[in-house]
Amino acid sequence: MTSIGIVGAGVAGLHLGLHLRQQDLDVTIYTNRTAQQVADGRILNSVAHMSATIQIEHELGIGDWPDTDAEYSYHYHYNGWGDERTYHGVFEQPARIIDYRIYLPRLMAEFERRGGRLEIRDLSAAEIEALTDEHDLVVVSTGKGEIGALFPRRDDKSPYTTPQRKLAVGFWKGVAPREPRGVEISVVPPAGELLVLPMWSFSGPVNALLFESLPGGPQEVLTDRRYEDDPDAYRALTLEILREFHPTVLERIDEAAFDLQGGAKDILQGAVTPVMREDYTLLPNGKYLLALGDVHMTVDPVQAQGANSATYSAKVVAEAIREDRVFDERFMRKVARRRAERLEASTDWVNTMIQSPPAPQIPRLFTEMVHNQALANRFTENFNYPIRQTDLLTSEARVEAAVAATAGR
Amino acid sequence: MTSIGIVGAGVAGLHLGLHLRQQDLDVTIYTNRTAQQVADGRILNSVAHMSATIQIEHELGIGDWPDTDAEYSYHYHYNGWGDERTYHGVFEQPARIIDYRIYLPRLMAEFERRGGRLEIRDLSAAEIEALTDEHDLVVVSTGKGEIGALFPRRDDKSPYTTPQRKLAVGFWKGVAPREPRGVEISVVPPAGELLVLPMWSFSGPVNALLFESLPGGPQEVLTDRRYEDDPDAYRALTLEILREFHPTVLERIDEAAFDLQGGAKDILQGAVTPVMREDYTLLPNGKYLLALGDVHMTVDPVQAQGANSATYSAKVVAEAIREDRVFDERFMRKVARRRAERLEASTDWVNTMIQSPPAPQIPRLFTEMVHNQALANRFTENFNYPIRQTDLLTSEARVEAAVAATAGR
Repeated sequence: MTSIGIVGAGVAGLHLGLHLRQQDLDVTIYTNRTAQQVADGRILNSVAHMSATIQIEHELGIGDWPDTDAEYSYHYHYNGWGDERTYHGVFEQPARIIDYRIYLPRLMAEFERRGGRLEIRDLSAAEIEALTDEHDLVVVSTGKGEIGALFPRRDDKSPYTTPQRKLAVGFWKGVAPREPRGVEISVVPPAGELLVLPMWSFSGPVNALLFESLPGGPQEVLTDRRYEDDPDAYRALTLEILREFHPTVLERIDEAAFDLQGGAKDILQGAVTPVMREDYTLLPNGKYLLALGDVHMTVDPVQAQGANSATYSAKVVAEAIREDRVFDERFMRKVARRRAERLEASTDWVNTMIQSPPAPQIPRLFTEMVHNQALANRFTENFNYPIRQTDLLTSEARVEAAVAATAGR
Repeated sequence: MTSIGIVGAGVAGLHLGLHLRQQDLDVTIYTNRTAQQVADGRILNSVAHMSATIQIEHELGIGDWPDTDAEYSYHYHYNGWGDERTYHGVFEQPARIIDYRIYLPRLMAEFERRGGRLEIRDLSAAEIEALTDEHDLVVVSTGKGEIGALFPRRDDKSPYTTPQRKLAVGFWKGVAPREPRGVEISVVPPAGELLVLPMWSFSGPVNALLFESLPGGPQEVLTDRRYEDDPDAYRALTLEILREFHPTVLERIDEAAFDLQGGAKDILQGAVTPVMREDYTLLPNGKYLLALGDVHMTVDPVQAQGANSATYSAKVVAEAIREDRVFDERFMRKVARRRAERLEASTDWVNTMIQSPPAPQIPRLFTEMVHNQALANRFTENFNYPIRQTDLLTSEARVEAAVAATAGR
């Protein structure tokens, strides 16, 4: 029987494992953390699953999340310039955000329940190479350090060598919900962005405040200051930043209740250098490793394209395996080509959004959306469709064409 | 309104025109021959439309061909070596062959009836360039001489600089049908191949005899000898070749009735140098031309992939236009990428089949199919699916994998 090894139990690896169990293949996922350790650990991200991803979850039989209430259909925007500053866009189908400390352990359990094998151990690059003798195909979906370096960086799709945003995300209580429920996107140059994401976590509904701060700007302090050093000061600093830059978020805050859901584990600080890597690598033993998820493509989280790209990519890989079990270079090139258009569109889109100084068409687009509901809806719905989003905003001419096509609707 | 110009009224241009009329776009097809001239002219080819193509025809509302009877579901094989030489493969859905002198004029009339404009005139390369000022997009689907040269040859996908087969095809009466109806594929090295194709033409059912002859081999005389010089001698020569190389075809011939359906117009001789060209070209005026059909990819007809690739390609172009009306380089690259996998698979497959000396896995595959019905069916059905066919036969390892997966079924 065809045997597949998957390195990494993030959303990419677990989706692929579940797809392959639907094909009754022999699948082993290698990870260095048990489900319990994931559940007990620090927050992993605050990523929204778009309806396109939820559709895949339904195909995998993991689309229903009883006892959670985490769907939303609105994007509420605030532009930090101009006379009119607020507007919103509406999704055709709701998106959903569930704490990955709940999401991933459930998928791990489901994978094992369906006959997948989960092996808990650390793997060096040499050990991953050795796995290619045990399995017909090894897919690498975790990418730190020497493992990521197995897949060469694609200069043509990696315009940055440093992070373009400093990140700080915390899961907070005391943020009043928007009705209808939605994500708030507050864009305030030169501070950066704030995304407020209604989500489901251990205590029920919370809001992730994801600060995307321009390096050197007034907001980056939320990434640089350590929460653990003085939780009260960090909370006060957060309120101060909201007061100064993000008024539509501040007005939702009940200061008496405003606090992290569960303390220091509920905050994550860091920065991401966006990079796209080659799809596969040829090992000295003549076998290939296939890259999946973050190790293949790391994007800034500001447009929620990491997990949504990874689940798409896992599906493409699974479909390729369904129709072809000869894991030679033709197979690798087939996977690369089939996922290229959408993954490159995601990375191009996000990299355009985080450019500084801003690509001229982006403030133009955001200014236009204030009074163009059709365009705001399209921009919102396109979080499901990175190709269409890149069509919309990749050049000044394209934004003008989208404006012309929607104006007066 | 978006205005599209299409140069060429072959199957590719007409399919694209019909797709675009379904989108209510302003479409003009430029061709140098009227429908009547096409109907009155020499035969154009003997190409089978696979069920995947017929499905597209149904989507276009041109899938029903009343008063014709041209469907078939079998491939009958004869290998010119070994003890057991005959076998067959079965399609899941029937294919169909209609004389293009009937097919194209009906599509031209249908295109005009649906509001498309047909302009009858010759166009130079300079005149095509001038069309880019009249239309938002110009698609070139005819490719002789200087027009083809607008699109650079892709060396990576064009392994040959000369024809690998000399071709002669005639529409003959006096060939008894196979029951169930099917195409016969007689492979006799070092003469080449003979395909006998049951089809519908002006006189009703006829058989196209398509001789694919190795240059320098004993069969090429059917391409070199001019029918018009001595019809009786050409007919006798054809019978002689059948007698010498193609016994399973000969046994179907009623020599008294064996004759071309309509004389010299019913025979076509020539040769094709397979070539794949770039998808698009940038003109000095800053506009792009998009290539479609033969001008983009010319394949030897031995695996019936020309028209089936062209109709697929037209559909991809139409879908790209449906979602994006900004005809910049991003658009061109999008079309290129979306059709690349299937078109390159078609060209790789056909180029592998006509290699000489033969790629070692091809006689291996044909020998195996004599006693492996599952594999013969897969090879047959894959005429719809060039990607799967290339998966099957692109290397010795892949043929062995396909044999292993089907043996004993």
